[in-house]
Amino acid sequence: MRIEIVTIGDELLLGFTIDTNAAHLARELAAVGVEIVHRTTVGDDAGDIADAVKTAIGRTGAVITTGGLGPTSDDLTKPSIAALFGRKMIRDEVILEALKARWARYRRLGPFPESNVAQAMIPEGATIIPNQHGSAPGIWLEDSGGRWVAMLPGVPREMKGMLADELLPRIVERVKRAGETPTVVRSRTLRTTGIAESALADQLGDLARGVDGLALAFLPSTESVDLRLTSRGLTSDAADAALAAGVLKLRGAAGRYVYGEDGADLAETVLDACRRRGVKLSVAESCTGGLLGARLTAIPGSSDVFMGGVIAYDNSIKRGWLGVTDKDLEDHGAVSEEVATTMAKSVREKTKTDIGIGITGVAGPGGGTAAKPVGMVWVALDGIGTQARCLRLFGTRNEVRQRAAQAALDMVRRSLETG
Amino acid sequence: MRIEIVTIGDELLLGFTIDTNAAHLARELAAVGVEIVHRTTVGDDAGDIADAVKTAIGRTGAVITTGGLGPTSDDLTKPSIAALFGRKMIRDEVILEALKARWARYRRLGPFPESNVAQAMIPEGATIIPNQHGSAPGIWLEDSGGRWVAMLPGVPREMKGMLADELLPRIVERVKRAGETPTVVRSRTLRTTGIAESALADQLGDLARGVDGLALAFLPSTESVDLRLTSRGLTSDAADAALAAGVLKLRGAAGRYVYGEDGADLAETVLDACRRRGVKLSVAESCTGGLLGARLTAIPGSSDVFMGGVIAYDNSIKRGWLGVTDKDLEDHGAVSEEVATTMAKSVREKTKTDIGIGITGVAGPGGGTAAKPVGMVWVALDGIGTQARCLRLFGTRNEVRQRAAQAALDMVRRSLETG
Repeated sequence: MRIEIVTIGDELLLGFTIDTNAAHLARELAAVGVEIVHRTTVGDDAGDIADAVKTAIGRTGAVITTGGLGPTSDDLTKPSIAALFGRKMIRDEVILEALKARWARYRRLGPFPESNVAQAMIPEGATIIPNQHGSAPGIWLEDSGGRWVAMLPGVPREMKGMLADELLPRIVERVKRAGETPTVVRSRTLRTTGIAESALADQLGDLARGVDGLALAFLPSTESVDLRLTSRGLTSDAADAALAAGVLKLRGAAGRYVYGEDGADLAETVLDACRRRGVKLSVAESCTGGLLGARLTAIPGSSDVFMGGVIAYDNSIKRGWLGVTDKDLEDHGAVSEEVATTMAKSVREKTKTDIGIGITGVAGPGGGTAAKPVGMVWVALDGIGTQARCLRLFGTRNEVRQRAAQAALDMVRRSLETG
Repeated sequence: MRIEIVTIGDELLLGFTIDTNAAHLARELAAVGVEIVHRTTVGDDAGDIADAVKTAIGRTGAVITTGGLGPTSDDLTKPSIAALFGRKMIRDEVILEALKARWARYRRLGPFPESNVAQAMIPEGATIIPNQHGSAPGIWLEDSGGRWVAMLPGVPREMKGMLADELLPRIVERVKRAGETPTVVRSRTLRTTGIAESALADQLGDLARGVDGLALAFLPSTESVDLRLTSRGLTSDAADAALAAGVLKLRGAAGRYVYGEDGADLAETVLDACRRRGVKLSVAESCTGGLLGARLTAIPGSSDVFMGGVIAYDNSIKRGWLGVTDKDLEDHGAVSEEVATTMAKSVREKTKTDIGIGITGVAGPGGGTAAKPVGMVWVALDGIGTQARCLRLFGTRNEVRQRAAQAALDMVRRSLETG
């Protein structure tokens, strides 16, 4: 099966909104063996929408659209495609009741808005694609020849949820019914941290150019360099086996820089490692200002490992809550091994945890000096793996902060591996 | 002037990476009156890259590419386009020295990697587009007929920096030299929070369909609903005047839900308001786990307003550091008006600040009960604007946390406006 994607919105065409939906659809569909053969973006214009969908359906008979299903006046997808299929728009009372119930449940800002009623209008003969993630339902419209258009909302969270809940199962069913044994595009990703892309490439040697016929891509981000192995042209089982073998080789070559696979978050890796060993964590954050705590608590179930700590942004809090002395601040400055070490030790003792993490640095853009430039960050651990490291990070203020939090987590990970 | 964009990378084609570069380019170029007429995405294949650029340059004579300039083996942009222009690849010693200096400055992980040398290879006769934001320089290649290709890296931070520093000034210069008086696409955005998209549309009435010939778009995100007014077909000065008048009308209609314009961050709005009044802030965060502190400290210069506070994730920290009593925890639970109020009051008193913020809630996905469902969050202010509010937020764990932090900031904003 081949599918075309039409993404709809002036936002996308003019670049005001980034088209995340097309990428998500391509990835999810490739993983079940469906190829995306063409991608078009059109603005909020009924004629352009109808033209793009008409062309696309002429090529493949199968089209997914995103966008233009909301309650505001620029949402034209449903009537445009209804007209293309020669269908009237009718009001669906079930949808209307669900919208009203949802409104009553979440909003306490007055009566049900009239502009929401448009969301209950659907093309005659269409099938509803339920939306558990927001208010706008999706639409499946099919003609007598089996050619279909699936219309999903443009809000990425809703689109992704509906794709997983409803649309992918429906498409997989169609592929099976057609008796196709598809080859798949499938990949696995190793996440590394603490090493630059080019140094990692050197470390991998020949593997950097691919592993046993699998393509290898280097994907650097603020906190990690991901290694993604991709298999193409194999059936599902063969792809899984080839990827498993390739991942093993890469892990051997990349060594301890690897902290997880696929969507792994280093915070989750660290929480899991702590949980296995019964270790509890606390933080004392200056330049990161709560970012490390936020990362740890972003993970559901973090409360059995992470107790909390102190945001010691101002020196008065470093002194009053964490026992940093005036003398240390005067002699060594707030960004120093001594202060980071005291922060880590105090927060660990006061919260009665097993590992205390102290972070103090110059996030920038101001505040740097020759001796302590922007990007200089001291990270200290106390308890298991007691140590202090001086990092020299580059990037914007927020990149420095994110990299500092990541480096602190990685110090905990490595301490637990060896400790 | 009309320009085509070619974005390069298997990542983009397969949907593994989201194409943010195309949107950014479209927006920045539209703002100076340059129209993007076509957008193509190709994979890491020398033939495909050359074909796409050849087709594009045949239509407009002006092409911007992104991607494929890095040090790893899948980066083919420069040699592919050099071949298209009939140019050899040569090593540029100036680039090589700069790469080595950069390596020495930031990395302490061994010798200069051989794989970095590829970044110093450029097509003969090309002009370097300097990169102040990373290691891969950009390339400007032009033929004798004035047709040009500008190659930028795919890393968004680097691409954006180089576009602003180097490429846009060069393009604006060309537009001027050609004597064109371009019409522009220009927009201004009002950011609102605390109101749903459809309720805001109702409140705006007729304005929701556009303001004096300017298009109005509603852009809901996790924390805000943005209202974007867009002017098309006017010259630069006329567009600015029309947008100024339109924004004034919208502000009148949207009232106190508006917290800023364009890229405004509510944290920055709040910090500015505090600074004007000499107000200092502190936080005591349970379910948000440091997220509010992280948002405040993401803003450069926040240290004169935000002192810090406590991440009271575990109840032991609520008790030990913030004076929450066992009785309150037993009688009312950790998610209660009483606990939020005590957290706000204690952190304000202990940090000697003017406003203390307490947040405690059920972020989910687990931990909800009938009486205290997922999404229920108590936010308390102490000091200026003393109050407590019970929020009923929807969404994922992180959406609930982000919305709680946003709501807390908005309570501070409103308190300072009226206080």
